[in-house]
Amino acid sequence: MEEEGNGKGEEAFRNTRVPPWTKQITVRSVVTSFVLSLLFNFIVCKLNFTTGIIPSLNVAAGLLGFAVIKSYTTLLNKCGLLREPFTRQENTVIQTFVVASSGIAFSSGMGSYLLGMSPYIAAQVDGGNTPINTKSLSLGWMFGFLFVVSFVGLFSIVPLRKMMILKYKLTYPSGTATALLVNSLHTPKGAKLAKKQVALLFKSFCGSFAFGFFQWFFTAGDGCGFSTFPTFGLQAYSKRFYFDFSSTYVGVGMICPYLINVSLLLGAIISWGILWPWIEQKKGIWYSADLSPSSLSSIQGYRVFTAIAMMLGDGLYHCVIMLIRVAYSLITEHLKKKESLHPNPDDVDKIPSADLDTQRRTEYFLKDQIPSWAAFSGYIVLAVISIITVSHIFPQLKWYHVLITYLMAPILAFCNAYGCGLTDWSLASNYGKVAIIIFSSWVGLENGGIIAGLASCGVMMSIVSTASDLMQDFKTGYLTLASPRSMFVSQVLGTATGCLVSPLMFWFFHKAYKLGDPQGSYPAPYGEVYRGMALLGAKGFSSLPKHCLQLAIIFFFLAVFINIVRDLLVHYETKYRIYRFVPNAMALAIPFYLGGYFAIDMCIGSLILFLWEKKNKSKANDFGPALASGLICGDSLWSVPAAILSLAGASPPICMKFLSSSVNKKVDTFLNGGP
Amino acid sequence: MEEEGNGKGEEAFRNTRVPPWTKQITVRSVVTSFVLSLLFNFIVCKLNFTTGIIPSLNVAAGLLGFAVIKSYTTLLNKCGLLREPFTRQENTVIQTFVVASSGIAFSSGMGSYLLGMSPYIAAQVDGGNTPINTKSLSLGWMFGFLFVVSFVGLFSIVPLRKMMILKYKLTYPSGTATALLVNSLHTPKGAKLAKKQVALLFKSFCGSFAFGFFQWFFTAGDGCGFSTFPTFGLQAYSKRFYFDFSSTYVGVGMICPYLINVSLLLGAIISWGILWPWIEQKKGIWYSADLSPSSLSSIQGYRVFTAIAMMLGDGLYHCVIMLIRVAYSLITEHLKKKESLHPNPDDVDKIPSADLDTQRRTEYFLKDQIPSWAAFSGYIVLAVISIITVSHIFPQLKWYHVLITYLMAPILAFCNAYGCGLTDWSLASNYGKVAIIIFSSWVGLENGGIIAGLASCGVMMSIVSTASDLMQDFKTGYLTLASPRSMFVSQVLGTATGCLVSPLMFWFFHKAYKLGDPQGSYPAPYGEVYRGMALLGAKGFSSLPKHCLQLAIIFFFLAVFINIVRDLLVHYETKYRIYRFVPNAMALAIPFYLGGYFAIDMCIGSLILFLWEKKNKSKANDFGPALASGLICGDSLWSVPAAILSLAGASPPICMKFLSSSVNKKVDTFLNGGP
Repeated sequence: MEEEGNGKGEEAFRNTRVPPWTKQITVRSVVTSFVLSLLFNFIVCKLNFTTGIIPSLNVAAGLLGFAVIKSYTTLLNKCGLLREPFTRQENTVIQTFVVASSGIAFSSGMGSYLLGMSPYIAAQVDGGNTPINTKSLSLGWMFGFLFVVSFVGLFSIVPLRKMMILKYKLTYPSGTATALLVNSLHTPKGAKLAKKQVALLFKSFCGSFAFGFFQWFFTAGDGCGFSTFPTFGLQAYSKRFYFDFSSTYVGVGMICPYLINVSLLLGAIISWGILWPWIEQKKGIWYSADLSPSSLSSIQGYRVFTAIAMMLGDGLYHCVIMLIRVAYSLITEHLKKKESLHPNPDDVDKIPSADLDTQRRTEYFLKDQIPSWAAFSGYIVLAVISIITVSHIFPQLKWYHVLITYLMAPILAFCNAYGCGLTDWSLASNYGKVAIIIFSSWVGLENGGIIAGLASCGVMMSIVSTASDLMQDFKTGYLTLASPRSMFVSQVLGTATGCLVSPLMFWFFHKAYKLGDPQGSYPAPYGEVYRGMALLGAKGFSSLPKHCLQLAIIFFFLAVFINIVRDLLVHYETKYRIYRFVPNAMALAIPFYLGGYFAIDMCIGSLILFLWEKKNKSKANDFGPALASGLICGDSLWSVPAAILSLAGASPPICMKFLSSSVNKKVDTFLNGGP
Repeated sequence: MEEEGNGKGEEAFRNTRVPPWTKQITVRSVVTSFVLSLLFNFIVCKLNFTTGIIPSLNVAAGLLGFAVIKSYTTLLNKCGLLREPFTRQENTVIQTFVVASSGIAFSSGMGSYLLGMSPYIAAQVDGGNTPINTKSLSLGWMFGFLFVVSFVGLFSIVPLRKMMILKYKLTYPSGTATALLVNSLHTPKGAKLAKKQVALLFKSFCGSFAFGFFQWFFTAGDGCGFSTFPTFGLQAYSKRFYFDFSSTYVGVGMICPYLINVSLLLGAIISWGILWPWIEQKKGIWYSADLSPSSLSSIQGYRVFTAIAMMLGDGLYHCVIMLIRVAYSLITEHLKKKESLHPNPDDVDKIPSADLDTQRRTEYFLKDQIPSWAAFSGYIVLAVISIITVSHIFPQLKWYHVLITYLMAPILAFCNAYGCGLTDWSLASNYGKVAIIIFSSWVGLENGGIIAGLASCGVMMSIVSTASDLMQDFKTGYLTLASPRSMFVSQVLGTATGCLVSPLMFWFFHKAYKLGDPQGSYPAPYGEVYRGMALLGAKGFSSLPKHCLQLAIIFFFLAVFINIVRDLLVHYETKYRIYRFVPNAMALAIPFYLGGYFAIDMCIGSLILFLWEKKNKSKANDFGPALASGLICGDSLWSVPAAILSLAGASPPICMKFLSSSVNKKVDTFLNGGP
């Protein structure tokens, strides 16, 4: 899609009329968005509950939205009933709606901070399992909480959009990529490619759905089916190294950068291959041999707390670096501005635009204004409502805690949106983690510090995450000439949908499966990890098994060190670009808890893409994301009927079991009625 | 490869020297041939012992021979040590050698008539299990038998080669295809394609070998592993409908015509899907419920005898039609000859050759003569030795029985070679079946009619089969300018290798696995089928369960009817060519005994080829055979280490087991130490 880049983009649309913003949001686009929102919410929920790794679904949302509306309009056109043609602004609106609503599925913490409050997770974590430190999950308060915290973020940085998009010209790689995709889908040349992409997406969707269906038949009982396939032998399986035939994660691996996938695998090898076997030898010395292996005072403690330490180290480093970068960037901008004698940063519309693209884009971006006073008053009203409601839902969190959060939040939201524009990396969950540590230690264990920490994490994450999502979407809108006003409305609608759907999805999974069971299909690892963080903040390090603190500190600094090394290499070693091979600390940490199976899935995805790129680079670039999206969507969608079957109590007919040779002999004797 | 057809072939080789026949057989080609012979013998043996379906391996032999010698000569060339370049004649010689030796693996009856003599198979077939009607297999007499019967065929029709190749210009499709392949491999344009083909063959070879290796790990114990995968559910599995992940048969399916594969599947559906379940309902009425299901007086009887009846019906029809066609063809030729006043059928060298191709080819074909007197005396000497030896090895078969066989054989050999030239269909095994019926009923059960029938089948099949193979190879040689003399020598060497290697391969399998166990991995179906035929001949129909004879007669005439319909359609319905959709009677019959699993493998092979052809027909045509050959060779070659591991007593570590939901619950309770 590179040919569609700067300078060419708008030329192709010279004769295309841009509809007014009220026409960009149509009934058909809202209906389509809603249906796709359901799908993507489901996918994100499933990912949340399996590994917590959520790839960027923008491309899939754009493609699927295009496919749905395009087939609908083509059908109407054939019947002679089409009144309004399908525009790229409409496509952008759909994409924004869907991404906003599935963003809520992530930031609502169904698999992280909210789940961490539940008594079931609390029972798994030693320490802090007191009534004041748990909260039973129920639909009622979850709806309330999400609705009051999720909209605040939208108002927090709206006034800054012109500065970020027009003046600083931040790139927002994902947003730009999505815009280019949408543009290319709507040009004549793109339409042909789009048709092929959609066809491949559809094929891989069906294939992955069918494979999910096929797998289901073999899962009668625990430890049955393809997901327990000891691909590399039973020994490796017991160390969680196996390929579990998950087309979702193969697809996710195709979307994630190679570095992330390799880092995940490396993390799995370091932890499950080397570190845990070594610590298990100290059983009875470092920790009591009587404890169940899932106790946090046992081997599981090492797994969880080293992972937390690495994530915190990585998160803190990024937060600090981001603050420094933003400050530095703003100062240099300020100096530049002085030099170039530009009178007013908001007078961007007066900057002479060299080319057609920038000119048209700026024109449409500035056409429909969102008044700053509306944004400010919106933020204040919503924050007040939120302060009252949140401190009511969580009595452990006092009103002044929430107030402080809302005072800090816009600054952090700006930092995150700015950083995201530079690096495409949203640090929302990192700011959330910082909030956990601050508020859980402030409130203290006796006063319900764990719940306070987790709740404040939710407040913080929601604002920071929605703010950067919105800015990302403004960039997309800027490049596709969609009105900021329609984008904002679409974002609001999407957020509302997310707040409504996401708890329902959670409830659906919650009823059908055992969420958060480390040995189950839905371990929801972040539930325990987030609770562990809050426990750490509230209680200090007393609950850790022997030497766990030292290990955690080592990994904390290892994460910081890795990041420093990488950043230094980026700046000072430009010849071989070794920084490309420095592993990602966050990705290293995730398998510490989960094991390597999904890393293997994702590496297989990488391998497929790598071989494909080697064979035909441009084809792989054009069709890789479509294939991956299909794999993810198909397999994830199969989870819906699977969950319904599970709820209805229908049991699969066959168990595919893997037995060691000796156990198999015993079983055969047993089945043949022997002794 | 069609562009390499008539009129263009020799143009590309105008400046290439054809070496004398003694230089066409080189040390390197003999060594390569011998090594490849081992591989192909192994493959054919494995196929013999699993389903008895042997695809044409000519292309694989040609490609692999080319790959080996080419890499060897390229290496030598780079070292500056190459003296003689690699010629297409040499390639043809290798291909002939390998095909001859693997032909013996088929005609030696290791999976059919010889196996049918063994007491183990005799014990499975009710009736005729007396000492005089069994013969323990031992390497000694098997070598002797093969050596005396296998060479006779070579001499039987050598004198007729000029008539068949030059005068009647018989097509021999397989031989022609191989020649075109060899020619195309050795032209500059072909070399590039050949390189790619060989690369694909190598890749699929490695992939299929690795997959075989991978599968092995999961086969601890009976009923474990991928070959027991109930792909379509346990119900279908019990009716032998499942995909057993055999890359060999997927490859075989890619080589066999669509019609054959669909016929196999249809046969499986008719028999295992409809007929046997219906007959099983009559258990206790039509046959005793106390019998084991593998007894020939039980359900197994229906399976074996209906299959035999269909095969006999098909075989007899073809024999009769072939005799009629050959007679008709010879008569019309005779009439034509009279009309065109050609003085002498052997004076073909005097026929004015219109084009370069025919001229050059005829020149080289006539250059090195094999005197007719040598052929005649060779046949007589070998026949006498054979008569003495065979009647000594099998006292049940008297010398005059063998003598009669050798008097009939040249006529049948001619018929078969002529028919094969017309239709590419060698009927050797059908002539063998006719011999079984004749001699087993002549000798009678009390005098060892079963052994006599099976032994005479061997004598007959060997002659008829090697004769048509030789003529096929003469055609290849004619098209590649290889000398008939070098072809003959290569054929003799290949036959000798086959006689030596084939019993050894049999012995290897025999020691490592239980051959002929209907439930095992190597059911060797033709062992029981051939013995069943001999029993039928020797004993009549008395041993059949109720209504089995009626069913058998129905299927006998069904086979004849299908063939008549097909032949009528071929002649009288040329518009839609419906005859292409008439199933093949032989292919219908095979799954009657075995079930549908390999038919499903083969249909998957067809499906792959079909989709490939739909996507890119020319690519599929160029690379399909290479992919298929790689799949067959890789998986089959893995059987060698697998058999060695089995002999060494090494057991795979894991059992992949498939249990029904209820059994799984029981097993789980058992494994958890429950009641």
